[in-house]
Amino acid sequence: MAQDSAADTRQQQLNLIKQADLTHHLHPFTDDNALKQHGPLVVTAAKGTRLFVETGIQLLDMVAGLGCVNIGYGREDMAERAAQVVGELSFYHTFQGATNPYTAVLAKKLSEMTPGHLNKSFFTNSGSEANETIVKLARAYWRLKGKPEKIQVVAREYAYHGSTLMTASLNGLPAMHQAYGLPLDGVHHIPSTAWYRNGGDQSPEDFALTCARALEAKVERIGADRIGLLFVEPVQVGAGVVFSSPAYWAELQRIAKAHDILIAVDETVTGFGRMGEWVYHPKLGIEADFVCLAKGMSSGYQPVGAAMVADHVAEVLAEGGVTQHGFTTSGHPVVAGLCLKNIEILAQEYLLDTVRESLGPRFQDRLQSLADHPLVGEVRGEGLAAGIELVADKATRRQYPLDQGVCGQISNAALMQGVVVRPVGNALVLCPPLVVNDAEIEHTVSVLESALDEVHGRLTGGD
Amino acid sequence: MAQDSAADTRQQQLNLIKQADLTHHLHPFTDDNALKQHGPLVVTAAKGTRLFVETGIQLLDMVAGLGCVNIGYGREDMAERAAQVVGELSFYHTFQGATNPYTAVLAKKLSEMTPGHLNKSFFTNSGSEANETIVKLARAYWRLKGKPEKIQVVAREYAYHGSTLMTASLNGLPAMHQAYGLPLDGVHHIPSTAWYRNGGDQSPEDFALTCARALEAKVERIGADRIGLLFVEPVQVGAGVVFSSPAYWAELQRIAKAHDILIAVDETVTGFGRMGEWVYHPKLGIEADFVCLAKGMSSGYQPVGAAMVADHVAEVLAEGGVTQHGFTTSGHPVVAGLCLKNIEILAQEYLLDTVRESLGPRFQDRLQSLADHPLVGEVRGEGLAAGIELVADKATRRQYPLDQGVCGQISNAALMQGVVVRPVGNALVLCPPLVVNDAEIEHTVSVLESALDEVHGRLTGGD
Repeated sequence: MAQDSAADTRQQQLNLIKQADLTHHLHPFTDDNALKQHGPLVVTAAKGTRLFVETGIQLLDMVAGLGCVNIGYGREDMAERAAQVVGELSFYHTFQGATNPYTAVLAKKLSEMTPGHLNKSFFTNSGSEANETIVKLARAYWRLKGKPEKIQVVAREYAYHGSTLMTASLNGLPAMHQAYGLPLDGVHHIPSTAWYRNGGDQSPEDFALTCARALEAKVERIGADRIGLLFVEPVQVGAGVVFSSPAYWAELQRIAKAHDILIAVDETVTGFGRMGEWVYHPKLGIEADFVCLAKGMSSGYQPVGAAMVADHVAEVLAEGGVTQHGFTTSGHPVVAGLCLKNIEILAQEYLLDTVRESLGPRFQDRLQSLADHPLVGEVRGEGLAAGIELVADKATRRQYPLDQGVCGQISNAALMQGVVVRPVGNALVLCPPLVVNDAEIEHTVSVLESALDEVHGRLTGGD
Repeated sequence: MAQDSAADTRQQQLNLIKQADLTHHLHPFTDDNALKQHGPLVVTAAKGTRLFVETGIQLLDMVAGLGCVNIGYGREDMAERAAQVVGELSFYHTFQGATNPYTAVLAKKLSEMTPGHLNKSFFTNSGSEANETIVKLARAYWRLKGKPEKIQVVAREYAYHGSTLMTASLNGLPAMHQAYGLPLDGVHHIPSTAWYRNGGDQSPEDFALTCARALEAKVERIGADRIGLLFVEPVQVGAGVVFSSPAYWAELQRIAKAHDILIAVDETVTGFGRMGEWVYHPKLGIEADFVCLAKGMSSGYQPVGAAMVADHVAEVLAEGGVTQHGFTTSGHPVVAGLCLKNIEILAQEYLLDTVRESLGPRFQDRLQSLADHPLVGEVRGEGLAAGIELVADKATRRQYPLDQGVCGQISNAALMQGVVVRPVGNALVLCPPLVVNDAEIEHTVSVLESALDEVHGRLTGGD
């Protein structure tokens, strides 16, 4: 009776929360009509790799929130750190030369975990703001170099760099452009190296070089005197974990350098251990003029981003006098305090080494067992990022039309069995917390097998 | 001896922090050369209205950080709340209809504290991102209404709306434009109502109407079919606390409505009690289509912002299908949990009522005693926001050239006496925490008197 009444109260509370949310919360990336029909999904708690939703259902989160919860959810040492810094220094700004111990030490840490020429960090509240910062600093750089016309920017198809007007323009995602009349003027796109999807009859190697040389064509059309900046992600995780070969990177960089184009490397998803490294791009031979950090920097415990600036760029910017740029909470002490604790946990618990040397290879190996499934075209990945590319016909690499929603059907079937994976176009993305264990990986593979079978059965008329 | 050694250790730590900061931290709004010369100012702790800097010097912060620390620094109940939510739900996103109890209830709270037609909130990590969101949603709105050409935006001179490329473009601050080749295309400015500075021979009333009618001239030049959005701050606090008369707001709104221009009201500084109200613009008779909230929403304890959307706009946006916009940490549970606690404190401790009915009037009254000083042209304010406009000649309202840095000299003199005020062009801005007490106000007035005397003495050759 008392239990019933406690359960009733919880259900009542849940209904009130759902009602409040439906009436007052304008959700990101949400279909308003579907939301009205099904109501919001209320996540009430999370621990490690597990989410607790509604009145107690447990889910295994193989996406780490949005690819950010690297150390896992709800750690007590992070909670203690939060309380400590909030009590000690709940806020102070970093304008006009002000700083605080957490932010100063975090800036030092970031330079230690990146290549030697990256020594200065500008703090922001998100990856979007970090990329905005990079675009602004590049514009300032070229003005100071006497080339104010070099304000045009090139990014890649399928790219994800953020959701402000400029960063959404950089994204290579037509749906994000159409709704808002983007891209802004002066933003251009070159092809992504998604060979399986778009490579046609070319070999993967030839296709990659074709993609790289599209930058040269862009320069010829627009002029090297007008293009100042190129944005790349080392791996396009949001697009289904799309890789590019070292030969591609070498060629792309050769063209960028030949035309005096700065390179911004967006490590939002790849940084802080997901690929077994603090940052992944040096492994690919990319030399960055700017680096964007976010997500794993706080393991999602706090909103945060950073724009790192190469020495040769920082030297030029220093000639510009007062930096006319900044956010109220740039370098927030509580945020920086939690980032430092997060970095400490990643290091002290050997999470990067584990991902790089054992957990990552085992994860990739187990997922490869799905490659033979008739619905699966390709399983790609490294570290704890993997993409399962779906296919309608393995021989021709023909894909299902996106509006058939095959990918969403599979991820829904997995969700019904308690496992969260992310459908992106025609690929399923997995990027679990770095504390995922072998049993959870095994369970995920078996749930995915069953979900693939279920949807395949339906597609081939078996249902 | 033990004490000496502890002091030595503290000094050594401080030096290391300073060195890390100098080498690795790219500061917002900072003169790089001055920083190299003087080193950073290390803030190590803060409590209530007080900052503790370097190895223990105490400062009275009459600027509330950057106009954001409304409930005061370092509250233990906020620290407890932080630990609680971090342990419980350190992160989950709000994409695809996901929510959490804190974010859902915060969305409801925001609608309760704003006029009846404002019922939907989109959460962001900053005021910049909230204003970016507003520009994007307005573009989506006009596309859905079949008017995709209405993408041009008008803002006011002296305005401050953020630091991304779009929001920095909206700012009416030439220095923020020059460094980055801004504004972006399609952003226009009309005069601010800063009569004391720019009103010339017109009466304040006539000048205000001239300013409002500049919108009409803009529309005539650009076309009502191309202008979709007008940005205003109810009070331009960052520009020296510049007010506009009710007649101005009525005329500006009449013109906007006549030409089908949506109105975005930026309450970043004015919201959450600084003016004795949750939001200030309804008092001025402004009817908002969008409202930007930030700063006081968390009292600076967390990076946060929200874009509120009027019902008639939300209805149109709902027709657009999936909202192709959002930030990883939009609606972050830890952030929302701290915002809710902050709102609870503001309400339970009657801080808005106190500011509106007693503390605010006393603060303004005491500052008015500085109006007779030969360096002071005008003391303006309401609630806990005040601007002290400096003047070289009271009769003609002639101001000191900005490069003479008179305002900075006065704020430096006050800082040397332990009181932080903010120099902005030719005005000193005060916007203390809402927990400031009478003795602190009294002390501030006497320090400002002495600082004004000191600089006046120097200017008139008394030295």
